[in-house]
Amino acid sequence: MSKKYVVVGGVAGGMSTAARIKRIDPYAEVLVFERDENVSFSNCCLPFHLNELIVSSCDLVLMTPEKLKKQYNLDVKVLSEVVKINRDEKSVTIKNVKTGETYDESYDVLVLSPGAKAIRPKSIKGVDNKNVFVVKNVGDVDSLKRYIDDNKIDDVAVIGGGFIGLECMVSLREAGKNVTLVEGLDQILTPMDHDIVQILHKEIHDKGVELILNDTVTEITDNEITLASGKEVKAGAVVLAVGVTPETSLAVEAGLEIGSTGGILVNHHYQTTDPSIYAVGDAIEVTDFITNKKTRLTLAGPAQRQARAAADHMFGRTYRNTGVIGSSVIKIFDYNAACTGLNEKACQEAGIEYDVAYVIPKDRVGLMPEANPIHFKLIYQVPTGQILGGQSVGKGNVDKRVDVIAAMIMNRANIEDLKELELCYSPWFGTAKDPVNMAALVATNLLNGEYKQVRLSEVRSLVESGAMIIDAREAREYEEGHIKGAINIPLSEFRQRLDEIPTDKPVYVHCLSSQRSYYMVRELTNRGYSQVYNIQGSFLAISCYEYFTDITTGREPIVTNYRFDLL
Amino acid sequence: MSKKYVVVGGVAGGMSTAARIKRIDPYAEVLVFERDENVSFSNCCLPFHLNELIVSSCDLVLMTPEKLKKQYNLDVKVLSEVVKINRDEKSVTIKNVKTGETYDESYDVLVLSPGAKAIRPKSIKGVDNKNVFVVKNVGDVDSLKRYIDDNKIDDVAVIGGGFIGLECMVSLREAGKNVTLVEGLDQILTPMDHDIVQILHKEIHDKGVELILNDTVTEITDNEITLASGKEVKAGAVVLAVGVTPETSLAVEAGLEIGSTGGILVNHHYQTTDPSIYAVGDAIEVTDFITNKKTRLTLAGPAQRQARAAADHMFGRTYRNTGVIGSSVIKIFDYNAACTGLNEKACQEAGIEYDVAYVIPKDRVGLMPEANPIHFKLIYQVPTGQILGGQSVGKGNVDKRVDVIAAMIMNRANIEDLKELELCYSPWFGTAKDPVNMAALVATNLLNGEYKQVRLSEVRSLVESGAMIIDAREAREYEEGHIKGAINIPLSEFRQRLDEIPTDKPVYVHCLSSQRSYYMVRELTNRGYSQVYNIQGSFLAISCYEYFTDITTGREPIVTNYRFDLL
Repeated sequence: MSKKYVVVGGVAGGMSTAARIKRIDPYAEVLVFERDENVSFSNCCLPFHLNELIVSSCDLVLMTPEKLKKQYNLDVKVLSEVVKINRDEKSVTIKNVKTGETYDESYDVLVLSPGAKAIRPKSIKGVDNKNVFVVKNVGDVDSLKRYIDDNKIDDVAVIGGGFIGLECMVSLREAGKNVTLVEGLDQILTPMDHDIVQILHKEIHDKGVELILNDTVTEITDNEITLASGKEVKAGAVVLAVGVTPETSLAVEAGLEIGSTGGILVNHHYQTTDPSIYAVGDAIEVTDFITNKKTRLTLAGPAQRQARAAADHMFGRTYRNTGVIGSSVIKIFDYNAACTGLNEKACQEAGIEYDVAYVIPKDRVGLMPEANPIHFKLIYQVPTGQILGGQSVGKGNVDKRVDVIAAMIMNRANIEDLKELELCYSPWFGTAKDPVNMAALVATNLLNGEYKQVRLSEVRSLVESGAMIIDAREAREYEEGHIKGAINIPLSEFRQRLDEIPTDKPVYVHCLSSQRSYYMVRELTNRGYSQVYNIQGSFLAISCYEYFTDITTGREPIVTNYRFDLL
Repeated sequence: MSKKYVVVGGVAGGMSTAARIKRIDPYAEVLVFERDENVSFSNCCLPFHLNELIVSSCDLVLMTPEKLKKQYNLDVKVLSEVVKINRDEKSVTIKNVKTGETYDESYDVLVLSPGAKAIRPKSIKGVDNKNVFVVKNVGDVDSLKRYIDDNKIDDVAVIGGGFIGLECMVSLREAGKNVTLVEGLDQILTPMDHDIVQILHKEIHDKGVELILNDTVTEITDNEITLASGKEVKAGAVVLAVGVTPETSLAVEAGLEIGSTGGILVNHHYQTTDPSIYAVGDAIEVTDFITNKKTRLTLAGPAQRQARAAADHMFGRTYRNTGVIGSSVIKIFDYNAACTGLNEKACQEAGIEYDVAYVIPKDRVGLMPEANPIHFKLIYQVPTGQILGGQSVGKGNVDKRVDVIAAMIMNRANIEDLKELELCYSPWFGTAKDPVNMAALVATNLLNGEYKQVRLSEVRSLVESGAMIIDAREAREYEEGHIKGAINIPLSEFRQRLDEIPTDKPVYVHCLSSQRSYYMVRELTNRGYSQVYNIQGSFLAISCYEYFTDITTGREPIVTNYRFDLL
């Protein structure tokens, strides 16, 4: 005897659960309620309508209720908001969004997939003005685009430097708008670390977007926004992308328990505290694979897996709940940026001792067309060498490298394993030693105490304190741009100039991308110099790291020339 | 007290060993002998000089002996062939290639990295003609290009459909030549399986190369080649790429043991049967990570790792010898093809029971520009579900997917792990369920007996035997091209047409890419139809699989229209 399943929410998690239930039991009665007018739309593609990369917003809607009925035999009702769960009667109350009429529908099993709603901070004066938009569904992006087009708006402000804000920023800029991005923290894209995102700050700046960090919006009017700093920015339309909060009101009202992170509490099977009620997607609390701590994660992949797991459990099928690692990727103009696992801040918060390898090799053989530097950062546990996280920024295939790290993390692999990992190679696609292998070599060397490094964030103070910095590049390279005060002792000459290198004080060595300096540091260390440090990332990374703050604060640069021509 | 190290061979393995020795012990005396005129050249880039992607052949040489001396303090002697190992005296005899003079050089530790030499079958009449070239070093490719340019040759034959042959074929075709590729087997690129390479056969054909399979060359003259079939092909120049054989003569003559595969036998530390003599690279025998059998592998990545391991062992450092899985990738015109681990033939040879999931999703969200089908094939052990191999062909990021499989294999992961793997997603880079996740879902469904499939290779005989084949696509799609004799019962209609589906005989269902047919097969199976099969890969894969043989044999196609417009 098949049961009756009611699903609240018709996007990623909800629709996946419904479809899976039907695949397991074609006789099941499955009802899906969605309060908006569309189901099964491509949430992640919304920003790409703004520059007409996706020309019609209709294309964002992948399935209609009619098609879902015909193909999958699913009953989907749109513009139907579930306003109440009547747990005792095992029914839900549904409101017709257009007419306001309500009715009850019984369930044997209820699935909550209400998603998360965009935060609209009441502290911002004018946050509800007609020129302020969030981007959560097709209607939102449609209204935003229409408002900009109809009112011929040239100046748009995007508030929030997370994934949605950044993607809207790119699309709007590519649509020819004057875009300002305002972010309250000292960096965009907080899943990644402060050092590696500096390249993205530069890219955003270079593409003509005004990027404002460390500032927040206090007031929005028809044609400008005012920031906490007092700064005023022209903006005819405002995209609000300051984060989301799980849609828990229905669950709270029904007395279901909410977790410590604010998401709906679920067990291993994605059941809420009422075993007849499951919850999946952006509204729930999940477990971090590495730290074992509770967290929230608004990503489509995990939502789909949760949906499948929940449906499976309804039919007595067992399932492995792995927890999440948080893998993501974004395209920001000409750069790609990807990350997985823990970043430095997350390690610190979890009290995990860690170290970092940061390499900048080419993403394919240097002789090949479009070979570009790839910034790759590997975070690993000290003293175990367990891989904790990976981050990569570059014009090329960063997602490949980070996906490999994701696979290594979920297999609880070690930097020793990564060092030996045999990956595909041909000159079009990579290098014989892939950047991930290279990072693992650096990491094992560091962990084994083969040599010592200093981090990018330490270089400025080294320069300012007059530390001994050696530039291991050739004289010609040095002349074209170098760290102020650095002494040029090329790798090709240092054995004849050993007397210039002091043994009684720290010496910091760099080259262009730390390969030549690594050789020099190794050899000096082996020759008995005990205070020699390699500067992580070397000149290329230092240039990227310093640039954006230099130009926005007007501080004195520590390099004579950034050499971005080499990027 | 530092030792004296002599290295035979100055490309990948040899030079990496030498550099690593110097990094560990800067006081070591390291001598590298190379019989050719260049060391440290980019072996893998040689074919790209033929279409002037790499304009000057000088660019292929990455390091000169002078630079190696200055930067790494290495003593490198080119045009110096080691002709004899005098094990009793611990010395080698070196011949100056230009003058013929010989002299002896002592060693404490000897490293053999002689590589592999291109096979020149004596069975081919004219194989040593001046218009026949192999592509093993810079001199080779230089001579080939010069010969073609100087003699204004328009017609070139490439013999052998392995990596080097294929890359030369692409470059020569892109340089505007009439190219014929002759391969003795029924497929190119034998690390991949017969079914998935059919796409590449089609691509090669579409790009105007004459691809001849199942035939061998018997004679070469100044302007043509004659094949075993009697066919004659115009060819002013011939590239011979029929494989390589390890350079073992030096080792054999010195009484070092050769392994069963014909490579130099080495132990865990890459020591030969003489513990003072190490061997690395293409000349040695390695161990397969999965089958534990001895094998040979001529890839740059493993050679570099062997070099590092050998050098480490010389200094008492322990090292993990993982064995090899054989990951590789190639670009063939507009298509990329990558593979790792065991293919079907290797499983059969090793007596491993296996099954295959073959999926053809889009490589990024379908709404995005340049979203293309990606053919992805996952091979896993039955009944354990252990991942054995992965292969992928498509216009997009195939290497990413195969690298993930490589990582999973080396972590001895299962299809259940792959199903749960959390990878980076955004519409530019993939889909929420990545092709590798999708393949794992198919694999687990198959392994768990959720539904049954037939392989691509079985479809033709099903058609010819008049089996019941259902096309689950919409009528419009069916009309634009379908399998001959297939009955069109769209997924959107089949519940109303169940009486047309027999229960007493096998029924084979397909759609465009097996997604809709999967739904139908699942539902029919759940409704009690016990003889329903999903056709692996569906119409897209069938078209690709049949096409090249159809056009070259003139046999009757089993489809009314291939629909390559959808590829």
